[in-house]
Amino acid sequence: MQKKTIGIIGGMGPLAAADLFEKIIFHTKASCDQDHLRTLIDSNCGIPDRTEAILHGGADPVPELTASARGLERQGAELLLMACNTAHCYYEAVQSAVSVPVLHMIRLTARALEERGVKTAGLLATDGTVETGIYQRCFAGTGIRLLLPDRAGQRELMDLVYQGVKAGRRDYDAGGAIRAMEDLLRRGAETLILGCTELPLAMTQYGIRLPATDPTLELALAAIRQAGAEAV
Amino acid sequence: MQKKTIGIIGGMGPLAAADLFEKIIFHTKASCDQDHLRTLIDSNCGIPDRTEAILHGGADPVPELTASARGLERQGAELLLMACNTAHCYYEAVQSAVSVPVLHMIRLTARALEERGVKTAGLLATDGTVETGIYQRCFAGTGIRLLLPDRAGQRELMDLVYQGVKAGRRDYDAGGAIRAMEDLLRRGAETLILGCTELPLAMTQYGIRLPATDPTLELALAAIRQAGAEAV
Repeated sequence: MQKKTIGIIGGMGPLAAADLFEKIIFHTKASCDQDHLRTLIDSNCGIPDRTEAILHGGADPVPELTASARGLERQGAELLLMACNTAHCYYEAVQSAVSVPVLHMIRLTARALEERGVKTAGLLATDGTVETGIYQRCFAGTGIRLLLPDRAGQRELMDLVYQGVKAGRRDYDAGGAIRAMEDLLRRGAETLILGCTELPLAMTQYGIRLPATDPTLELALAAIRQAGAEAV
Repeated sequence: MQKKTIGIIGGMGPLAAADLFEKIIFHTKASCDQDHLRTLIDSNCGIPDRTEAILHGGADPVPELTASARGLERQGAELLLMACNTAHCYYEAVQSAVSVPVLHMIRLTARALEERGVKTAGLLATDGTVETGIYQRCFAGTGIRLLLPDRAGQRELMDLVYQGVKAGRRDYDAGGAIRAMEDLLRRGAETLILGCTELPLAMTQYGIRLPATDPTLELALAAIRQAGAEAV
C-alpha cells in the first residue's frame, strides 16, 4: 500500500505542532529515514487566538485555518491534523474547506478511551478549553463521564500551565496541581485527559506519574495508522 | 517590517528537521503565538540517502530535494533551509531550482566561527560527512584550521551516533567518545563542531560539557534574523 502524506496545521502555539510531529516520528515503525511518513507542516502563527475568539469576540481564526488546510492539501497532504485542542471548535469549517479527511483529536481520544473501557475520566484543560465546552460536546453520547477539577484545583492547573511550563520555570512547585489531579482520581477518574498541549510537557518536566491520556499522542497514533504505517 | 516565511526541507532524518524547527521556536523573541515566524516544513522521507549517493553511487537525491524546495516556495516560503549536513553537497542544485535564498548551514557555521575569532576547530561528524569533504571545502579560504579525530577517535564518534543516540540507548557509555573530543581540544581545537544532527542530542543526553558549536543552532539563528525577527 502506498503510504499517505500527513499535513499538520500548526502554530497554535508552534511547540504543540513540534510535539505532534515528534510523536509521529517516534511512534512510526521505521528502520531508516525512508521508512518514515512524509509530513507537511504549516506552522501558521498568523492564526488568531482561538480562546479569545470564542470567549471574548476576538478575530475569527477560520480564514487562516482554512487557508492553511487548503495550502497543505494543494502541496499533497492526504490527511490533515490540527495541533490544538481549542481549534477543534472550528473542525466543521476546516473539514468542509478541503476534500481530504481532517482527523479529530478530541473525538479520537473519546473513542480510544471507550475502547479501553474507561467509564470516568478527569479533564485537565485551561479555563478557555473548559468554557468552550469542546470536550464536553465530544464526550456526550459516549458512555464516559467527564469530571472537572473544583474551582481551586482548576486554578492550580492554570498556574501549572502559565506559571510553570509557559514561563519555562523548571523549579516550579507542582504540588498544588498534583493534589488537584489526585482529587480527580479519588473522585473516580480512571485516567486524566491532558487536554492542553502544554500538559504532556508538564507531566515530564515535573516528574508527575499519574494515569494519564495524551490527546496529541492519540492523534499521532491514529494518523500513523491512517497513513498506512505501523504505530509502535 | 513584514516578517518572512521560513521553509525547511526535512526528512533527512525527520528528527533533524524537528530539532531545527524547535531551535527556531525557542530562539525567536516572542511573547505570544502570533509573534513567532511562520514556518513551512516538508519532512520528505523520500529523499534518498545522501551519503549512499555520494560515496557508493546510490540514487540521486537532487530530484526530491529540488521538488521539496519548489513545493515550499510555491506554498509561500521566502527563505529555505536544509536540515542535514550532507545534503549541502547538493546546495547549488537546490539554490538554482528556486528564486528564494537557500541558507547554507555549513558556510554560516564557518562565518560564525570566524566572527568569534576561532582559529582552530575540531570536526565531529560521521565517516560519510567527513569523506564527502563538505566541511573541508566550506572552511577552505577561511582562516580556520579544521582538525579531525584520529582513526580510533573517529570510530568512537561513529559508535556514539549509531550505538548510542540512534539506538536510543540512554545507558550508553560515552567515555571513549569524550576522550576523542578531549584529544581534539588538547591538539588545539578551541571548539568542537557538531557536524552531524545527532550530536547535539548526544551532548545533552550523555551530559557532555565541552566547548561546542552546533550548526543547526547557527542555521536557526541566521534564519530568524533573515526572516526579520529578533534572535535570543
